[in-house]
Amino acid sequence: MTERNSGSVPLTIRERVHEVVFEADTFSGRAFDLLLLWSILLSTAVVLIESVGFYQERYGQILYYAEWTFTIGFTIEYLVRLWCVRSAIGYARSFYGIVDLLAILPTYLSLILPGAQPLMVVRALRLLRIFRILKMGHFVTQGESLIRALKASAVKITVFLFAVITFVLILGATMYLIEGQDNPGFDSIPKSMYWAVVTLTTVGYGDITPKSTLGQFFASLVMVTGYAIIAIPTGIVSVEIAKAVSAELTTQHCPTCSREGHDRDATHCKYCGAEL
Amino acid sequence: MTERNSGSVPLTIRERVHEVVFEADTFSGRAFDLLLLWSILLSTAVVLIESVGFYQERYGQILYYAEWTFTIGFTIEYLVRLWCVRSAIGYARSFYGIVDLLAILPTYLSLILPGAQPLMVVRALRLLRIFRILKMGHFVTQGESLIRALKASAVKITVFLFAVITFVLILGATMYLIEGQDNPGFDSIPKSMYWAVVTLTTVGYGDITPKSTLGQFFASLVMVTGYAIIAIPTGIVSVEIAKAVSAELTTQHCPTCSREGHDRDATHCKYCGAEL
Amino acid sequence: MTERNSGSVPLTIRERVHEVVFEADTFSGRAFDLLLLWSILLSTAVVLIESVGFYQERYGQILYYAEWTFTIGFTIEYLVRLWCVRSAIGYARSFYGIVDLLAILPTYLSLILPGAQPLMVVRALRLLRIFRILKMGHFVTQGESLIRALKASAVKITVFLFAVITFVLILGATMYLIEGQDNPGFDSIPKSMYWAVVTLTTVGYGDITPKSTLGQFFASLVMVTGYAIIAIPTGIVSVEIAKAVSAELTTQHCPTCSREGHDRDATHCKYCGAEL
Amino acid sequence: MTERNSGSVPLTIRERVHEVVFEADTFSGRAFDLLLLWSILLSTAVVLIESVGFYQERYGQILYYAEWTFTIGFTIEYLVRLWCVRSAIGYARSFYGIVDLLAILPTYLSLILPGAQPLMVVRALRLLRIFRILKMGHFVTQGESLIRALKASAVKITVFLFAVITFVLILGATMYLIEGQDNPGFDSIPKSMYWAVVTLTTVGYGDITPKSTLGQFFASLVMVTGYAIIAIPTGIVSVEIAKAVSAELTTQHCPTCSREGHDRDATHCKYCGAEL
Repeated sequence: MTERNSGSVPLTIRERVHEVVFEADTFSGRAFDLLLLWSILLSTAVVLIESVGFYQERYGQILYYAEWTFTIGFTIEYLVRLWCVRSAIGYARSFYGIVDLLAILPTYLSLILPGAQPLMVVRALRLLRIFRILKMGHFVTQGESLIRALKASAVKITVFLFAVITFVLILGATMYLIEGQDNPGFDSIPKSMYWAVVTLTTVGYGDITPKSTLGQFFASLVMVTGYAIIAIPTGIVSVEIAKAVSAELTTQHCPTCSREGHDRDATHCKYCGAEL
Repeated sequence: MTERNSGSVPLTIRERVHEVVFEADTFSGRAFDLLLLWSILLSTAVVLIESVGFYQERYGQILYYAEWTFTIGFTIEYLVRLWCVRSAIGYARSFYGIVDLLAILPTYLSLILPGAQPLMVVRALRLLRIFRILKMGHFVTQGESLIRALKASAVKITVFLFAVITFVLILGATMYLIEGQDNPGFDSIPKSMYWAVVTLTTVGYGDITPKSTLGQFFASLVMVTGYAIIAIPTGIVSVEIAKAVSAELTTQHCPTCSREGHDRDATHCKYCGAEL
Repeated sequence: MTERNSGSVPLTIRERVHEVVFEADTFSGRAFDLLLLWSILLSTAVVLIESVGFYQERYGQILYYAEWTFTIGFTIEYLVRLWCVRSAIGYARSFYGIVDLLAILPTYLSLILPGAQPLMVVRALRLLRIFRILKMGHFVTQGESLIRALKASAVKITVFLFAVITFVLILGATMYLIEGQDNPGFDSIPKSMYWAVVTLTTVGYGDITPKSTLGQFFASLVMVTGYAIIAIPTGIVSVEIAKAVSAELTTQHCPTCSREGHDRDATHCKYCGAEL
Repeated sequence: MTERNSGSVPLTIRERVHEVVFEADTFSGRAFDLLLLWSILLSTAVVLIESVGFYQERYGQILYYAEWTFTIGFTIEYLVRLWCVRSAIGYARSFYGIVDLLAILPTYLSLILPGAQPLMVVRALRLLRIFRILKMGHFVTQGESLIRALKASAVKITVFLFAVITFVLILGATMYLIEGQDNPGFDSIPKSMYWAVVTLTTVGYGDITPKSTLGQFFASLVMVTGYAIIAIPTGIVSVEIAKAVSAELTTQHCPTCSREGHDRDATHCKYCGAEL
């Protein structure tokens, strides 16, 4: 990307702004990204603090102004991005374009929908601004092999989750039969399914627990089974990560015998001894 | 399977129905499968909704009719399957044959066993209709390597579960000795074993917890041990999934004996010795 | 072992009894093992049932007789084993010899130590008879590669557990500082350490939970860290199981090029094509 | 290190003390290390016991003297280390130098800051002495491949934890919207985030649980997702441990350039090309 600067043709203002806002290979580009990162973090902190009743009562006014400062700042940033990008529609439809819009919309919606009761809902909508934090993904370039591994295991994980949901249905219905009569925690199948999920995933809140001996025996069976089940996604992901990691390492062919599988630090083919 | 259609001999009605009901390679076959899938999902939803007291009171009549509509529909489907399949007994004894029967039986049983009290039990039996969801397995063809991996690890998992049960017995008895006197949660060995399962599997409801210092110390030991134990099924399944996945990869056929399953670095067929 | 029967020298009575009691390759030997297995299971069931107050009150007399029948039976078995084995001391000192003795001792101790108060303790000692179930290990021959994998990872797991205990100490002390003043659940370091173990192992009873905001924040850090920590024993065991499984498969050398790594079903060397 | 003793030049007192205090290859060096190990364990036990109100009341005086004995002993040890080491500043700045200082500081601070109220805080500071236990790391030399595996996976784990924190933010805000109105457990976003961490890590205290049907449904989704997420760090660490373990195995030195790290199937040195 730095090659564009090495050209003799001078950049237009729009191109220079694009470079600052979208790229990170100039000093001003990096400074802008850092400023943006801190703004996102601070504005997220404001949303968090605002939700705590104690701070809302005491510093409500300051938080209100901070809220609007960030919203206007992010709005200007959004408009600048729309202006300087080559395809405004392309950006608006991209993942980060939508996230950037969602980050500013809730505060404006709180103006259009005034009144006492709906305000609560709107304040809630403003929380969507928390998606701003997703912008921080811009700064994460490492871990791509992680994402590749997850994508590769997506089909198997989906089949697995489908099987788990079926299993949860049957477990929920069975526990409803066993405990439903006397235990208010199991008085409907959906509630029993909630228990089944809490138990199978080994979260185990304890808000709903079997009381009868038969219920506790059946629950024990479920837990021991869940023991083996939890191993499956781990196994799937482990294998895919292993493949992604080994793919990182071995992409070099020997020019003489053309076999691959050499380590990154190898300078000679480990099979025929020719230089790599 | 599409080859059967390319033949010149015209299909009988029974063969055509078989194609629609059992196969998915014609337009009508796929349409039937989709209809069936949605019927299963909807009928399962009806069972779930019926179990919630609130909805049962309000929409009981509608749910009752929906229930019977689905049951009659599935009964017709079951009879058609019996008629058009080559071996009716073979189908009836197959896994899906039994599931198909279990899916319709409970509703009819509620007619034969009338009265006030038993009705509760019968309504419970009707819940078995939830097994209908298992039919959805028809539509899942992917993930076979998952099932192969699980089958391959079944023996090791069984030995592991057996060891865990023995361990749970000893843990339960020990905690009964330590806490049994004062703590109602540990007033019998079976109850203490229930606690041991809840703890070892890291579910940790918290409905039964040690109160004495000795009990908490022993429980800590159990948890830290369980830490290492939970690693075992994961390790077993990971290894088997890795094998199943690598087996997916080596699909090279021997040009001489046309058997597959060769390793990636193989230069000769491992069965007949011919060069690959 | 069956070769000993094919010899022309007739067996002495002691040798014949040894064959029945210690071996499983004759009809009577197998029958004895099955009888023993069922006796162990039933006697364990009696101990379990006896510990439940409800059954103890109702069927106390029957359980008492069953208890003594099993104890006398196991005593005779123990004496026969001592008599027919080549080295009585060797057997008595072996793992199963000690377990066999521990299985019968508690019931006799309840005679020597009579009286109202101590009886409770003795009844507790009788529970050690549950170790009888460990005898069932005789019947488990599979899963040896599992045990080999665990032994191979024992050193790493020990280092890991040592590190976890140090970590638990520091976490316990820190939480005692943060929450100790106001939260009775953290009023001593050992108690806070119990909380740290419950949390790090993801058991999470919920009997002791942080109440202050700082405590909840710190606990969140602990949980997310525990997320990464729980991965370590799993990783260790997975790698060792993978090695144990691959060791099962590849033990054959090619007679021509003497390279190994062939699959079990290979009939030709995959490197040079020679017959194996 | 024993080679230094075999030299003809006699050691100075400072060198001899250094050998005893810092090395473990002479009899007196090993004896000193064992004494130190037991002192650390005992002094840690004193801190633990002191924090329990019951023992503090009864044996407060003895614990006070034990406390000071250990502190003075560790102070002398610290000064000796400073004196006999080649670079005193280098030691003081090293990890163990700082830990050694932190282990003695809190007790002295309790003298400088006297009075009734602050004493509580100082007693708390003294707990930092627990870092003494970290010295035990001196004695752990095994498990280095474990640490190497963890270091190698640090970047991926960091990216993963960053993604988890973002996820926790969004989950917390969503649950605050769903449950915040009626459920005091979700009355602020930070509290909801605490719930999200407790749930995602499968700890599941149960101190905060969703009550509404929508909340329980959403929580179920979170748990099932967390099921797949927990697999990621395990996969990362497993792969790195596998690499570290296989690196342990390939310890063949090249006869020409004497570098190691060759794969098992290598026939030529991958660095210089010479035959192995």
